Amino acid sequence: MRHLRTMNDLSNKEIMALIEEAMEFQQGKHWAPETPTFVANLFYEASTRTKCSFEVAERRLGLQVLPFEVSTSSVNKGETLYDTAKTLQSLGVSALVIRHPEEEYFNQLHNIQAAIINGGDGCGNHPTQSLLDMMTIYQEFKRFEGLKITIVGDIRHSRVARSNSDVLHRLGAEVKFVAPEEWKDDSYPTDSYITMDEAINTSDVVMLLRIQHERHHSGKAGLDDFHKQYGMTIKREEEMKPNSIIMHPAPINRGVEIASELVECDRSRIFKQMENGLYMRMAVLKNALTKNEGGKEHDNIIKEWEMA
Amino acid sequence: MRHLRTMNDLSNKEIMALIEEAMEFQQGKHWAPETPTFVANLFYEASTRTKCSFEVAERRLGLQVLPFEVSTSSVNKGETLYDTAKTLQSLGVSALVIRHPEEEYFNQLHNIQAAIINGGDGCGNHPTQSLLDMMTIYQEFKRFEGLKITIVGDIRHSRVARSNSDVLHRLGAEVKFVAPEEWKDDSYPTDSYITMDEAINTSDVVMLLRIQHERHHSGKAGLDDFHKQYGMTIKREEEMKPNSIIMHPAPINRGVEIASELVECDRSRIFKQMENGLYMRMAVLKNALTKNEGGKEHDNIIKEWEMA
Amino acid sequence: MRHLRTMNDLSNKEIMALIEEAMEFQQGKHWAPETPTFVANLFYEASTRTKCSFEVAERRLGLQVLPFEVSTSSVNKGETLYDTAKTLQSLGVSALVIRHPEEEYFNQLHNIQAAIINGGDGCGNHPTQSLLDMMTIYQEFKRFEGLKITIVGDIRHSRVARSNSDVLHRLGAEVKFVAPEEWKDDSYPTDSYITMDEAINTSDVVMLLRIQHERHHSGKAGLDDFHKQYGMTIKREEEMKPNSIIMHPAPINRGVEIASELVECDRSRIFKQMENGLYMRMAVLKNALTKNEGGKEHDNIIKEWEMA
Repeated sequence: MRHLRTMNDLSNKEIMALIEEAMEFQQGKHWAPETPTFVANLFYEASTRTKCSFEVAERRLGLQVLPFEVSTSSVNKGETLYDTAKTLQSLGVSALVIRHPEEEYFNQLHNIQAAIINGGDGCGNHPTQSLLDMMTIYQEFKRFEGLKITIVGDIRHSRVARSNSDVLHRLGAEVKFVAPEEWKDDSYPTDSYITMDEAINTSDVVMLLRIQHERHHSGKAGLDDFHKQYGMTIKREEEMKPNSIIMHPAPINRGVEIASELVECDRSRIFKQMENGLYMRMAVLKNALTKNEGGKEHDNIIKEWEMA
Repeated sequence: MRHLRTMNDLSNKEIMALIEEAMEFQQGKHWAPETPTFVANLFYEASTRTKCSFEVAERRLGLQVLPFEVSTSSVNKGETLYDTAKTLQSLGVSALVIRHPEEEYFNQLHNIQAAIINGGDGCGNHPTQSLLDMMTIYQEFKRFEGLKITIVGDIRHSRVARSNSDVLHRLGAEVKFVAPEEWKDDSYPTDSYITMDEAINTSDVVMLLRIQHERHHSGKAGLDDFHKQYGMTIKREEEMKPNSIIMHPAPINRGVEIASELVECDRSRIFKQMENGLYMRMAVLKNALTKNEGGKEHDNIIKEWEMA
Repeated sequence: MRHLRTMNDLSNKEIMALIEEAMEFQQGKHWAPETPTFVANLFYEASTRTKCSFEVAERRLGLQVLPFEVSTSSVNKGETLYDTAKTLQSLGVSALVIRHPEEEYFNQLHNIQAAIINGGDGCGNHPTQSLLDMMTIYQEFKRFEGLKITIVGDIRHSRVARSNSDVLHRLGAEVKFVAPEEWKDDSYPTDSYITMDEAINTSDVVMLLRIQHERHHSGKAGLDDFHKQYGMTIKREEEMKPNSIIMHPAPINRGVEIASELVECDRSRIFKQMENGLYMRMAVLKNALTKNEGGKEHDNIIKEWEMA
């Protein structure tokens, strides 16, 4: 079994193969493991769509899902993540989907043989979100080369921004950013940053990030101001390029990142992204459960997740 | 698929058909959808019996139940009920059972195509509770016409009182109330209110409501006093009409609405109501999942829930 | 159906039969009830391994598991444990696995016909933990007679210490204790208490108990001191008898009861205990569901859990 911790675990070829398989699941392909297989979803942070999406994906693959509510577990008694994971493995769990506030928490889990699928680590990675975003773009344009994609919002703290921009770049797309000064990430070149108006006029994909109320406290006035300067307003949507699309990982703050009226507009792929997430997670789970089933140790080598 | 939001969604004929089908399930009838079908239970308020009852009903029908704990969901990130419902629909959920503190929350959900089954809205409606109460009365007396039914307790704030009294009335029963002055609902005629002693002597059904500790703060002395004036005491039970029954939607406050010793007495149908709830919810779910499966929009027309 | 409330419910012969059956499940034996069977896990206290272990055991036996989160249930509305249990029984639940902070809570449940399986009551009993410990010892030594077993830690407050020492004693093993003065239980003879060094040199099994941070507040200095005086240090492990083993019910406080490096050492059976717990709980559930299926009342007679 193999792990999916960051997008660096996947080559371009592997990403394309996952997209293909997710689209096959979307078209009705059936797959289930031959013997009863248990997975557990360990979510140390709030989540609706990622957790539910994995749950439905797991059930559709005929997996047995072990409920694990962090709030009522021994995590409250100070148990380490490693000991919790090892316990679940002792109970026969074959794959662990984990969301955890600590960046690269998975580095603690080298001796766990159950497949580790990262459902989000702190401000770091969220590979299944990246994969479903890639699937949504690919379904729309049938290519990545030559596309111009602009990511808008809190670039510095977003787990989506970093992994999507890296992946889009190596898949051949041009990636730009729009961000308020305090949310810029200095590790990108200065000319990666453009204005919202330039983004609107030139992008094939405008990818809005979520304002993290939980992490920033800007108040109602700050949010209104953000909407005016960086939000997808009704006027801006009208000025977008023909055939360009709007994406957002959700949950949405209506009237902040995007006008409420645009959430389900023709250009919006927001609920399509959610639907795609289900099929992408089916593809990821299938691959995690079928590669090297003997249980080779988590060996920390990039590109280990070899696909047939 | 069709919705069950209030008892007004159902004609008398439809109510009788649901009671018949629930009794068939009780006698062992089997039904399951032909393809894998997902439902989600969204409970924004605490519940044991309604939530568990739906869960068991869903499992018995072979449905896949998506766990959704509000406390660990993106609801904490301020997501709207509509966006949560739309997300679950994007994941392939066919029916949503919802309990929510806001009255008529379902008016926000007109564009949701998944069936909406109301598990309780604020002080408003609780249609599956009404249906299981109707089933319990019908099983006992084989009719509604000519029955005298008295509802006792907090008439003003109860979601059970309003919907049960309306439905019993249109099914042909005579409905009376017993309530302390401050809990009377002025929209009923003055002569609807009788004393507890008159209720005991003349009613076929004495339907006790739960004192909502959560909503009122009357103290221990107030509760003892309520029991003496309005509770089902051992002495009162002895003075009830032959063949008359006691009902209570539970959870029970022992020694307040009813003496602890009477909870399982011969006249009590309290645990029978719980059992009936299971079969009624199976009937409701089956109907919600089989009517107009194409997914006609939620059209807000009363009596839309047409039965064959 | 029959109950497992304390180890006193089981004769020595019955314990051995459960160990045998658990080992059969470990070797791949399959068993499932002939008709759909519901169980509910009511955990009024935090738990990872006991709860997950029962969940996996239940799923492997093909049981339908009703999720029951105390934090979102009517328990918050003051419902009694009896009424909650009776409600679940009315919904068709055949067995209740209960963890509750009140000692001997099961004495409230005499009129419940669903099988009661105790998942831990206060500082009192935890019979499935005792059974999995017995299974682990028996697998190692193929006998209990003549073994010397030392239990180390908070003897006074541990639900494991009391029930394990009683059972080991009647199965023929010699049981000793190591404890700080304030954690000694005076009901054992004075010569039951030995020093940690004597325990290390003479025991076949050193059974470490968990320091209950939740119940005691000793501070970091106190914990370091405990480790030096009573903990399994690297030096002590080297001085243990040949073929002797280390056990711990988990969750572990690394560096307190045991040095972190020893958690997975050759002598450690800690994760083996977790694995055994799964198979033992399958054996317990099977027996609870197959004895006297007519639903004889809970009759409070010791040794009622007769095995074929």
